[in-house]
Amino acid sequence: MDFNAHFATQLEALKAEGNYRIFADLERRCGAFPQAGCHREGGVENVTVWCSNDYLGMGQNPEVVQAMVETVQACGTGAGGTRNISGNTVHHLALEAELADLHGKEKALLFTSGYVSNWAALSTLGAKIPGAVILSDEKNHASMIEGIRHSRADKALWKHNDWRDLDRKLHAVGDRPKIVAFESVYSMDGDVAPIREIIEVCEAHGALSYIDEVHAVGMYGPRGGGVSEELGLADRIDVIEGTLGKAFGVVGGYITGSAALVDFVRSYASGFIFTTALPPAVAAAATASIRHLKTSTAERSAQKARVAEVRARLDRAGIPHLANESHIIPVMIGDPVKCRMLSDILMRDWGIYVQPINYPTVPKGTERLRITPGPAHSTADIDHLMTALTSLWSRCAVSHAVA
Amino acid sequence: MDFNAHFATQLEALKAEGNYRIFADLERRCGAFPQAGCHREGGVENVTVWCSNDYLGMGQNPEVVQAMVETVQACGTGAGGTRNISGNTVHHLALEAELADLHGKEKALLFTSGYVSNWAALSTLGAKIPGAVILSDEKNHASMIEGIRHSRADKALWKHNDWRDLDRKLHAVGDRPKIVAFESVYSMDGDVAPIREIIEVCEAHGALSYIDEVHAVGMYGPRGGGVSEELGLADRIDVIEGTLGKAFGVVGGYITGSAALVDFVRSYASGFIFTTALPPAVAAAATASIRHLKTSTAERSAQKARVAEVRARLDRAGIPHLANESHIIPVMIGDPVKCRMLSDILMRDWGIYVQPINYPTVPKGTERLRITPGPAHSTADIDHLMTALTSLWSRCAVSHAVA
Repeated sequence: MDFNAHFATQLEALKAEGNYRIFADLERRCGAFPQAGCHREGGVENVTVWCSNDYLGMGQNPEVVQAMVETVQACGTGAGGTRNISGNTVHHLALEAELADLHGKEKALLFTSGYVSNWAALSTLGAKIPGAVILSDEKNHASMIEGIRHSRADKALWKHNDWRDLDRKLHAVGDRPKIVAFESVYSMDGDVAPIREIIEVCEAHGALSYIDEVHAVGMYGPRGGGVSEELGLADRIDVIEGTLGKAFGVVGGYITGSAALVDFVRSYASGFIFTTALPPAVAAAATASIRHLKTSTAERSAQKARVAEVRARLDRAGIPHLANESHIIPVMIGDPVKCRMLSDILMRDWGIYVQPINYPTVPKGTERLRITPGPAHSTADIDHLMTALTSLWSRCAVSHAVA
Repeated sequence: MDFNAHFATQLEALKAEGNYRIFADLERRCGAFPQAGCHREGGVENVTVWCSNDYLGMGQNPEVVQAMVETVQACGTGAGGTRNISGNTVHHLALEAELADLHGKEKALLFTSGYVSNWAALSTLGAKIPGAVILSDEKNHASMIEGIRHSRADKALWKHNDWRDLDRKLHAVGDRPKIVAFESVYSMDGDVAPIREIIEVCEAHGALSYIDEVHAVGMYGPRGGGVSEELGLADRIDVIEGTLGKAFGVVGGYITGSAALVDFVRSYASGFIFTTALPPAVAAAATASIRHLKTSTAERSAQKARVAEVRARLDRAGIPHLANESHIIPVMIGDPVKCRMLSDILMRDWGIYVQPINYPTVPKGTERLRITPGPAHSTADIDHLMTALTSLWSRCAVSHAVA
């Protein structure tokens, strides 16, 4: 077989449908967020980033930066091994204690990414609880889907955010161990799950509840414990999963739960056991970020204000966006080529960076520009964004493509 | 179902067979490797680490530390998004260029860990090449096994390092696309694959060859390109996979290969697409480490000398260890409880840290102490290790347990 010819053909197909991905070549500038350098032909230009998942700009927070720098200087650059074989340090343990406290759980377990935390935890729970059935919200993230698939446990999808459908599906499963997996804030639509109702259904059926709060931790709840904290429901959820790579501004993922559950995953999850631990400096930076956001509400308040302002101005300009209760503003385009084109024009003519969100990140036909305002965006940044979008919308009649 | 009771029962089973894992609580000290702090009841003690996979001590190399510190200060702590959505920076691209050059390949692709690179690349290749069969060395690492399993491609195991068996198995597959996955240096036995013979067999059958060099990159070959570079075979291997978390002293994983193959994995691998990019500072530190080891041979020479010395002195002391051509010295114990006990005594009475390697990292009955001498171990460190081991072996008659 000519493997390279096969790869080339598949890549051509992606290009033909407008789904071939081109990454912007950025240079983050600590202290200047959301401004960044962007390398293009002919040099480096300044751009305003409007699509970062460093939602609160914690990646440039001086305490977080200092914790990372000091720990690199004190401990070196890497962990030097898996958690079991020489890679377990005081910084990892401190972070896990901080995370358990954040969610009011007995224990936490750190993974190399949020993707790995979902994949490893769900694949382990599904595979190692005999007869388990996993009931998965149909819009769950790829990392959960792949983890469930990898577990080879029986699986049932329930309609997105529909707790009544979940209730029916749980009934249908009968007397087997049941795991219910869902998210609090869905990344691409920005909608929020009816957590209270879902939890009540789980409790009624004796199901283990597993919530992904990666797009909520740091941003919701009085201490940044996520939507489950905001609603006072954290103690009724068995597993709260989160990330250190979005609002906390670093990298890594985790689960929190009972001591027995966390120790079980620690002891059996291939994706936890057989991988080098995160650098101690990454753990220290994440700990500093979580601690900061446990007491500081300035970042959350400013984010909410910026999000409200952008949304209100989009409404005034007649630019349609998905309604939701979160900080994520999806401006729907509905076509991959048009979405890429708009993004390119914003970058080239306006110095505004909003990555086109195309398949497979969203279903085909729901392509969008996903705008994430944060505390570092100024009024001038918002003015500039609105001028650009208004100009584009009037020129391109994009709105006709929108449902 | 009482989930916690199930978890507790499973954990009790691990404890009963001696396979429950207890992590040492370390404090790495940059500039003092292989010495580290170890937190135990009653305070922090100094220990000498003899089981790190930071094989060359690059985690405390001043250029590497400086690169990480400067990039944190310049770019902040995290990447802020997936590679596609605002997380792609000049530091990631520079690292990928450095890696492609290291292995003489057209392109490289960075993953969050070596585990994820194997899992994502093999699961994507296996799933997206119609009709593919993956032929896997029976001792391949968990990350490769899980990736192959996740691909749902047909799979055939071949006998460890047995290219004749591989040849027979390839014959048996017939006219389908074939992928051959193996390692250069096997982590736990330290043995080295007959790469030339394997490659010749792959070429004869038109199979795509995939080598995991995670325990070789940085340490073998004139520029640290691994065993494939040492043998002058890199250009005949389709995919060379490696890690930034062992000899390079940081964290992360990668594949290198043809432009089409790398772009294909970049475009289709869930584990690449849907995860936050590594921090720019991690990428910059890894780049500095690779560059250093491309020209400096001092670390490799010193490692070889220390390994030879420890091996010779173990032989003189009559302490059996697995023969191999690599830097990994497995001292076989063959019992999980005894292995843990020896490790505990070494730590408690001698301030020597060698983690017991028990199931599932190695098969039951092959438990071992895995010693990894490096350039930072002094003659005094080696003397102390040998005094401790000799004392233990004479007291405990451990050798009787050894095959």
